[in-house]
Order: sequence, then C-alpha cells, then structure tokens
Amino acid sequence: MNVADLQTPALVVDEAAFEHNLRAMAAACPADRLRPHVKAHKTTALARRQREAGHRRFTCATIREVEGMAAAGLGDDLLLANEVLDARRLGRLDARVTVAVDSEATVAAAAAGGVREVLIDVNVGLPRCGCAPEAAGGLADLARRKGLEVRGVMGYEGHAVLLAERDVRAKLVRDSMELLAAAHRDVGGDVVSAGGTGTFDLNDVATEIQAGSYALMDTAYAKLGLPFRIALGIVATVISVSPGYAVADCGLKALGMDHGNPDIEGGDRVLFVSDEHVTFVSDAPVRVGERIRVVPAHVDPTVACHERMHVTDGERVIDTWSVDLRGW
Amino acid sequence: MNVADLQTPALVVDEAAFEHNLRAMAAACPADRLRPHVKAHKTTALARRQREAGHRRFTCATIREVEGMAAAGLGDDLLLANEVLDARRLGRLDARVTVAVDSEATVAAAAAGGVREVLIDVNVGLPRCGCAPEAAGGLADLARRKGLEVRGVMGYEGHAVLLAERDVRAKLVRDSMELLAAAHRDVGGDVVSAGGTGTFDLNDVATEIQAGSYALMDTAYAKLGLPFRIALGIVATVISVSPGYAVADCGLKALGMDHGNPDIEGGDRVLFVSDEHVTFVSDAPVRVGERIRVVPAHVDPTVACHERMHVTDGERVIDTWSVDLRGW
Repeated sequence: MNVADLQTPALVVDEAAFEHNLRAMAAACPADRLRPHVKAHKTTALARRQREAGHRRFTCATIREVEGMAAAGLGDDLLLANEVLDARRLGRLDARVTVAVDSEATVAAAAAGGVREVLIDVNVGLPRCGCAPEAAGGLADLARRKGLEVRGVMGYEGHAVLLAERDVRAKLVRDSMELLAAAHRDVGGDVVSAGGTGTFDLNDVATEIQAGSYALMDTAYAKLGLPFRIALGIVATVISVSPGYAVADCGLKALGMDHGNPDIEGGDRVLFVSDEHVTFVSDAPVRVGERIRVVPAHVDPTVACHERMHVTDGERVIDTWSVDLRGW
Repeated sequence: MNVADLQTPALVVDEAAFEHNLRAMAAACPADRLRPHVKAHKTTALARRQREAGHRRFTCATIREVEGMAAAGLGDDLLLANEVLDARRLGRLDARVTVAVDSEATVAAAAAGGVREVLIDVNVGLPRCGCAPEAAGGLADLARRKGLEVRGVMGYEGHAVLLAERDVRAKLVRDSMELLAAAHRDVGGDVVSAGGTGTFDLNDVATEIQAGSYALMDTAYAKLGLPFRIALGIVATVISVSPGYAVADCGLKALGMDHGNPDIEGGDRVLFVSDEHVTFVSDAPVRVGERIRVVPAHVDPTVACHERMHVTDGERVIDTWSVDLRGW
C-alpha cells in the first residue's frame, strides 16, 4: 500500500527517522540505562523495536499499559510509574511488575493487590505525585513491613524536561536529583528512576532514564535541539479551499492540543483547529484533494487518538501497528 | 454496579440531566426540526435515545460515524455535514446518505462514490468549509448535471455558537443566515441545514438545527445560560496529596483540552493537566482514594478519548454505552 491510499487522517511513522531515534538513544543510554516510557506511543509493536534496540525494561503510566505489555511478552521488568489505589489487576499479571507508591494508602493498595515490588515516588519539584524527599525513608520502611520489596526511588523532573535552554534544564535536573539522591540514601535499593527525553543526557544521578517521546518526537521537543528527528506525522487531505485559506481533514479528535496548534510540513501556517478540520494558510496554491502532513505539538495525547499507526518508507506503507495500549 | 466500583478515569452521564436535555431540546426543536449531530457523543446508544425523543434524521462529521449509524439501524436520513474526496464507503451503505459538497472536486467525488444526494455547503462566515454564497447555484447545477439530487443547502454559523452575549450571537446568526437564504434561493431544495447548541433558538432560517452538544453539555456551553444541564463528567480517583495540592487520575488522554482546563465539581481549582493526571487545589481537606468529578471544557473531543460511557442514577450505574463511532 502507498501513503496516497491511506484513509485520512492517518497517523504515520517515518521508518528512517524512527530508526535514527532508536539508535541515537540506544547509543546514549544503552540497554537498562533506558527504561522507555510506553505512554508516548501506546504501541506494543513499537515497544518491541525498543527491546530489539537493547532495552528490556519499560515504564508505563496506566494499568492497561502494563497489562498490554505483559500480554505482548514484554513483561521482563515493567514499572508503573504512577500511583494506583486498586492494584489487583497488576497483582494478577504473569510479569515482573513494580509500582510507584508515595503514601500509606498506595503502599497498602500495592500490598493488598498482590504486587510484590515498589519504588518510592519522590517529589523533586514538579507539583504532581511523589512524597516529600524527607518522607521517603519512612515510607520505604512501611512498605517493607507490609512485605513489599523496595527496589529504590523514582522522581520525575517533569518541570525541567521541556525548558528551552539547556543550561537552565541542567541546573533544574541537578537540583531535582540532589533531592532524589538524598531520598535514595534513606530508601536504599538499586534503582534510581528519573528523566525524560529533554534530560536524557543531563541526568547522571538516575540509574535509568524514563524517556518516551524520543522515539517519535513532536514539535515541542523538536525546539530543544535534541539529537532526535520528528518521525510522527498525520497525513491529511485538503477537503476545501477558499480565498486566503484551505481546510484539511485533521482536527482536534486526531491531535493532542494541550501544547497548542500543530505545524504543517512545508511551512503552511495553522489558523485554527476544529473537531475534524485544520484551517491553514499557504503561500503556495493549494488544490482540493492534495495531501498535507500535520506535525503534532504533543506526541502522547496525539497517538492516543488513533487506532493504528502506519510505518512508511517514503511513499510506501511498510507496516501498520495497532495502538493497542489505549484506555485504562 | 455502583459509581464507586468503576475503574477510573470513567466517563459518566447523569441520566436525569441527560433526559432533561433531550426533553428541553425536543420541545424547542421537535422531530425533524432537529438533526442531532452525533460528533458530540459518537455513541449509537445515545443516538437511539435521541430518536426515541422524536428525531429521525442525524448529522455526522466522519464516514465512520455514518457507517456506524447505518449499521445501528439509525440510517433513515444521515447527513455527512463535511466534505470528502473519497465517497465510496458512503455509496455502499444501506441507508439514506446525503453528503455536503462545496467544490467541483467534492461533487465529482460524491458522484463517483455512488452517493445520490447532496447539500451545497455554503460559507456563512466561519473560515472553514463551504463555497462562496454566490457560487452555490452554479455548484448545484453542476451536481444535478452529474446526476445528484440536490436537497438544499447547509451553512454552519460556527463563529457564533459559543459567543457569550445572546444579542451578539443573534446578530451574527441573522447575518449568516441572510447569506444562506440567498444561496438557498439559487440552489433550491427543501433543506436549509444549520445551527448548533448555541443558536438552536436563534436560527429561524434553517429548516433543521444540527445541534449536538446539548445532550451532554460542557463548561464552555454552560457559560451561555442555555436551558441544558451538564450531564457529562469524568469520575477520577485522588491518587496523591501534597501540601497545597492534590492529584487525580484524569489527564490529557481523557479530556479534550482545546477549550482549556476542565472544572472540578464542588469548586476545586485545576492547576494543570498532564497525560494521566490533573493537579488541583481544594479548600477542603482531600484524602488519597477519594473520588472527584471532572467536568470537561469541550464535550466532543473528550468523549472521543473514551471507549465507553456509564449512565448513572445517583450512585448507581444503570447502563454502559459503547462509544462506538470513534475513528475515521
């Protein structure tokens, strides 16, 4: 099949750029130095390529992601880097599952659900999950008393990963990782899990980096000058042309919009996005029926809008992957 | 099952508010005066309730929506209020299908795809699809020469539907509908299709109103003082509490974010939303494990994030509907 034959809007992955990203990351963070985050792609076929690139351990954000990875035979070492209050679905899996805990309630849920291993999730500056660094040791003690194996700590410097200036990013990573290292001294264990695509080569405290976006990339991360290429796009068909603007069939329901409007390859400018439409301005003449390539601002929620992604080599579709980890 | 037993995040529909909305709209726009837009809910079970409320005709935004409605036995009169360049899937359906056309290319696609009926889509002020009003008559002639039945015109005043002040909205509707009425005189046919939830009682030129959001509502439409109640919410679990804020498991992948942050019932204030988290501030003490109800800012892309919605009567789940019209 050719790209021109795809029903639009169609999520497409450029194989060459994707392969470049896998290689670049595996060179910087080989094997277990990277714990790829599957929330960025929600696709076990893609995760399998990450495993072929040397990474056996994976990070997940939802129970469904953990279940799907286990079912796909990718359950060597799955970290649910998120808190859950009902861990029973995790406890039933035939896979090695570690879950993040940051409170007495989440420790109790892990134990009650039959999960055997946990990481203490430490707040390192992002106002989200994670216990206070000084509370981490006590929580680890509690977890051990409940019979849980405490493998170490995690602490996501999410407030740093998208900052434009590398120096500022580096400084925030250092500050955050000081907190995490202190917590780790109190907690013990082998694992210090942290980091993302924006800090993968700035974080030398973490024993493993949880990057996910690097594989497909988006326009937000592309602004940072990282050694990864934009591999993801959405092929759309121009369905209407009016004086001054044109409209293609890639809308809100095909795009994560929290980072703002997408780009269009070739320099066309997006005016606004509706449920099923992108209205844009082009310097060149646009013809009804021609195709454009829309580049999302935020990869994670964009991929989650789609049932499948097509892997392309130029104009050829060489594979189609099910986005099989959607939902909860 | 009770709401408390639902895996979170869970999309829920309050039966009483939903039923109120159906009744209020059916009273204002009975039977074929309303052509409910299924893009707002993407759920044939919900569309069936709209049919039971008297509406036999439906509006769709995607080919998949038309196919799904036809397969569900709701194909008496389906309008695809959108342009397509490949209409073959529409031409194959065992249903009455009318498609919007606004160019020679979309007329040709309708004819080539085996579609028999069209509406001329007229631009009435929203910079999106639709031909210039003065071009509508010529396009209708072209469509008839191609053997297509031209049922009339459509023209969506989407630039008016969400304006806060009713007088301003009314003025824009009048201006838009003057353009549509002029185009209709040139085109002929019985159908003048337009309108939305924000203009359902302001548009007296349209023969049928394409409202969709009214059934479930969202915080954007709630600001307009319409006679519809918010029926849609997302039940989320508080998974982490820190000094000054708390975090629940309803994130970007469960919410349309193009209209901004959601609200939380009870007055909690949203700080920011991440892939799987909402971080919020509450005046009252918050406990890990308790549940909150998140109210989306934009119903259409929110529903499209979910596989199912649960219909609730107080704390009881009385039905579960598949969101079966997702994708393209």
